[in-house]
Order: sequence, then structure tokens, then C-alpha cells
Amino acid sequence: MGKESVCIVGSGNWGSAISKIAGRNILNNPHQFEKRLPMWVFEETLDEKMGGGKLTDVINEKHENVKYLPGIALPENVVAVPDVLEAVKGATYLIFVLPHQFLGKTIEQLKGHIQPGTKGLTLIKGVDVKNDKIQIYADLIEKELGISCSSLSGANIANEVAQEKFSETTIGYRNEEEGKVWKSILDSEKFKVSLIEDVAGVSLCGALKNIVAVAAGFIDGLEWGDNAKAAIMRIGLVEMKNFGLEFFDNVKSATFLEESAGVADLMTSCMGGRNRKVAEAFARTGKSFDELEKELLGGQKLQGAATAKEINSFLKSKKRVEAYPLFKAVYEIAYEGRDVESIVTGVSKSKL
Amino acid sequence: MGKESVCIVGSGNWGSAISKIAGRNILNNPHQFEKRLPMWVFEETLDEKMGGGKLTDVINEKHENVKYLPGIALPENVVAVPDVLEAVKGATYLIFVLPHQFLGKTIEQLKGHIQPGTKGLTLIKGVDVKNDKIQIYADLIEKELGISCSSLSGANIANEVAQEKFSETTIGYRNEEEGKVWKSILDSEKFKVSLIEDVAGVSLCGALKNIVAVAAGFIDGLEWGDNAKAAIMRIGLVEMKNFGLEFFDNVKSATFLEESAGVADLMTSCMGGRNRKVAEAFARTGKSFDELEKELLGGQKLQGAATAKEINSFLKSKKRVEAYPLFKAVYEIAYEGRDVESIVTGVSKSKL
Repeated sequence: MGKESVCIVGSGNWGSAISKIAGRNILNNPHQFEKRLPMWVFEETLDEKMGGGKLTDVINEKHENVKYLPGIALPENVVAVPDVLEAVKGATYLIFVLPHQFLGKTIEQLKGHIQPGTKGLTLIKGVDVKNDKIQIYADLIEKELGISCSSLSGANIANEVAQEKFSETTIGYRNEEEGKVWKSILDSEKFKVSLIEDVAGVSLCGALKNIVAVAAGFIDGLEWGDNAKAAIMRIGLVEMKNFGLEFFDNVKSATFLEESAGVADLMTSCMGGRNRKVAEAFARTGKSFDELEKELLGGQKLQGAATAKEINSFLKSKKRVEAYPLFKAVYEIAYEGRDVESIVTGVSKSKL
Repeated sequence: MGKESVCIVGSGNWGSAISKIAGRNILNNPHQFEKRLPMWVFEETLDEKMGGGKLTDVINEKHENVKYLPGIALPENVVAVPDVLEAVKGATYLIFVLPHQFLGKTIEQLKGHIQPGTKGLTLIKGVDVKNDKIQIYADLIEKELGISCSSLSGANIANEVAQEKFSETTIGYRNEEEGKVWKSILDSEKFKVSLIEDVAGVSLCGALKNIVAVAAGFIDGLEWGDNAKAAIMRIGLVEMKNFGLEFFDNVKSATFLEESAGVADLMTSCMGGRNRKVAEAFARTGKSFDELEKELLGGQKLQGAATAKEINSFLKSKKRVEAYPLFKAVYEIAYEGRDVESIVTGVSKSKL
């Protein structure tokens, strides 16, 4: 049996953090893996403050992504490659970790250049919604590239992972054998991988938690306290789980309720995180999300409010909006002028 | 059918907050309930700063518990009664909300004075552990007083509930009919009661979450960040659930994973809370819990470390300590000099 070749498609903050772990694990398993770990880097010229030069050259000379993960030494076998086709050449395990808006174009470039039997793993948050169709990115990658694709998500602030602070993550695998290889690539003493047979559940957690983080930010802005915030997080978690169970096959409740991808990532997103922060400012100031994204994030777009909108349009097409009152409230508050204080109206229900 | 009479046994911060809700609900349901809501108050003389006088007199004149819930107006039908036997006389619904260390003595006083058919509800946190026997307080009350007893717990910081900030809570009921009456006594627009048929689960959540809050405080003291804290909370929640399922009959996973008593109360306890705070100081300073309780809380005892010790001794008697590595770590760190940094050793496990 030949050795496996891993490639990382993407090189932002999270991709670079992952390259540190994967690079080291690959070096420690020379019988299983080719030593070289190519990382596709969208080429850019660094400005003078960062010393100039091309980003790929700087990464390969300094073994540091000075732009997106400064201060963290990357293993020397991580090689920045500006051409995506060159990066993936010969790869048998592909990690997709790029902003979701670039995925479609990247897939188009890769079509016909991925060898049969290659395995994929997506770390991309969000879901692809078109009218009454909802698709996780793992399924999109599988369909478009004809490969098996698993999904990773968890309570994973990239800088903390890169600094080797204790973290957990969840991989939802397509089959156990692939899951075990992904674990050998990514698991470490300070980054504990848990395997679960639930690609869709893991993917949905990473998308839907951003809606709940917006709701949690509203509560912070209203200064309603810890009881209300915990209540909103609980209600949001249950809606996330119910959504998964209603619209996807073979999704497991435990993915949402017991895994790092579910309850734990929800906690980090609602305690800190940018979706929470912008939503807090929204509740305090009454400014729009667009304005606040400009003011607070230099125009960078957040996924929370956008996901709330997409999920709302999907639920409308299914006539199921009312079954998810918190998701509904977040959408209507963010986009339709609904009063922020009404966020709790109808969300807390008991069977008796 | 005669009207029901409610009595609150206890009048601290939480008991007083509850009296505000119950008092108002009773007034709004004059056909179902006697108007008067006696609240047993352990009599004390207020010092000069608080204006002097007996606490019961002040509560009944000012309709405010100036010592334990200052600034909150209580409904006028809440009547402070210094004699516990007089307080419970004729009561058909008894709410127990007093420090757990006073429960045994209070039960002794009440024996033979509770009319048959009375229903109980306990809001007391903690469990009663003696060697290899573990008992929730609802069962203790049932056995000793010969009455049916339900349990209430949730993400309920008392002051926030008293200020009518949005909160949820969970009642684990003995039977549906009793559950519905408890809900009519305690549910309000800003204090949403969810009913579940799981007295033991609800009770255990309120006890075991304090162990996890200590673990979360350790992480804060170590400055390991949000990923690690979310991981510890997740692991703690799963150990809580596993403990309930292993040692009690008819406990439901959902109580831990989906109810306010479970996941939501865990969040409030790990975000704020005194157990978390003292544990953080423990990790930072190396001082003992006894010392820190003196310094930070005027000698008041916390339940987190004490519960960790009781649960450890129970698990030892069952030879099951190793199945609960986080509970074990908290006990050993707090009492046996184990290194705080070793808290994550062995806690994160995956089946594959």
C-alpha cells in the first residue's frame, strides 16, 4: 500500500492553525504519510508593514503565516503553494478550509483534477441554501468532485488551537476507516478529535450556532443577564437539533447535545465571537448589521445574520417557520424591524 | 373541592424571589388557592444598619426581605412566620427552599404535623451521600414526611428572577397532575416553567453542576481560554448525565442535555457563580478552598468542592471512580494536592 498524501486547500487563520497540527502528525507517521504537506495559499503581495514580498514566499522562508496566523511557527514540511492544481496534485486526503464564498469557484478549478478514491474533509462553516433546497458543503464537495467528504467542527478558536491550548473537536465521518485516518492526521494531545458517524449533524452545528450567537448577542445588548442568556442558548441548541432531525437523514441528537461541534462550540460562540459582538451592538445602537460590520469589522461579513436569513427562507418554503421561533425571531429582528425585546416571545414552550 | 394552601419553607435570597412569583400567581387564581402565602422565616434580629427589629416584623410591615432580597417588593399576601409549625399549618403545597444543612432538623420539627396528601417541592441543591448510599432531597422528604415531593432547578440566579428578567426553570414532577399545580403556582411570563417527569434528574443537575463549575473555574485560573472551558463544560455535562443514568432509575438524558435544569444552569454556573470564582482563585493562588472561602466569602461554604468529595467517596464505594475522570480530577485537585494542570488528563475520550 502506498503512502497517503495530505493537502490543505486554504490558508487563513484556521487553515494555518490546522497545518501546524497536521504537519507534525504527518512527520510523526512516516510509514503512513508522505512527508510534504502542501497548503494552497491564495497569493497576495504583503504590504510594507509586513515586510513586503509574496505571501507564499514568506511562509516558505519563515515557516510562519505572517498575515493570518502571526507568531506561530509552522512545521517545515508545510509548503505554501500558490497554484491550487499544483497543490492538490497527487493528494489522497484533501482538507477544505476556505471562506465559503470561495468554495464554488475552487471546486470548478479542481474538477477533473482530483484522482479517484481521494477523501475530503471540510472545515467550512455555513450551509448552501437555494429556495427549498438546503445542502451541507460536504455533500456539495462529494457531488461536484466525486469524492467521499467528511466534516470537522468544534469549539475551536483558531488562535487558541495554534497556541496549543487544550481543545476538542468533532469529525463527522462517512465511514469508520476514513474517520480513523482523519483522526491520525489531526488528533493531538491538545487537540482531541472525537469521531462520530454524522457528517450532516457536524456540518449543521457549525452553521446554525451562528444564528444562536446572534440571539445571545441581543440578550447581552439588552442587559438581561445570565439566566436569559443561558435560556436563549438552551432554546437555540434544541432548535438546532430539531432542525437537523427534521430536514436531514441519519442525523444524531448526540452530535448537537454532547459533542464539541454542538453544545461546546455553541458556548464559545455565545461567550465570545464576532456574531455575538455585532448583535450586541445592534441591540444597543439600533444600527443595521451592514453598518455595524463596516464599523466593527472593516466591512467583513458575518455568517450569523446571513444564515438566519437563508434558514428563514428555507423554512418558509417548507411552511415550518413557526416550529423554530428563535430562528424566526433572529431573522425578523435583524432584517424586518421587529423589536429586539420581543426575542423571547413564544420561544419557551413546555409540553404540559 | 377545597382550595389549596401553599407555604414556603425558607426565606433566603431564592425563597424570597420565589415568594414574589408564587404570591402573585396565588392572588390571580382565587378559586384555586387560599390568598395567604405563609413563608417560614428563621427569626433573627436585624442590626442597626438595617434599621433593627425582627426580620419577620420588617418583612410583614415593609413587604420586603430587607436582609436577603433588598429592593424587591413582595406581594402583600406573603406573610413571614417565625414558627415553622405555624407556617405549615393547613398547607397542602409545601415549597422547601432552605440551605441543605438545615433540612434534616426542619424535617424533624415537621414530622407528624404535615397533613396526609400534602405535596412537596424542593428547591434545595445538593444530594445526601452516606458511604455507598446516595439520595436526592426529594426522596428524603418523601420518606421522612410521607408526602409526594417534586423538584425544581434551573438557570436561576435569584436576583435576576426577582427583577423579572427573563428566565426558565425545570420542575421534575412525581405525577402530571401535581406538576400542573406546581406550574400554576410558579410559572409566569418572565419565569417559564418546563415540566418533565424526572425528579431525580432535575435534583442531580442542581448538585452535580457545581462540580463542573469548579472545573471551569480551574480553567479560568489557568487562563487556558474559551476552547478549553467549553470542552470542560461539555465533558462535565456528559459525566453528569452518565452519573444520573447509571445510579438512578428512570432518569432521562434530556433533563441534562435539553432542560434549563441541565445544560442552561451549567452555563450560568460556569460563566458566573461563586464555585467558579473560588476555583479560579485556587488555581491562581494555590491557597486551599477553606482559606479562600474565608477570604472571598466570609467563611461561607461552597457546594462545589464538597459535592466533588461526596461524589468521589460514593464512586469509590461503587468502584466506579475511573468512569468519571473529570469528577475525579476536581476532587483530587481540590483535596489531594493533584496538579491543577492535569485536569484534562484522560477526560476527553472517543470511542474510536
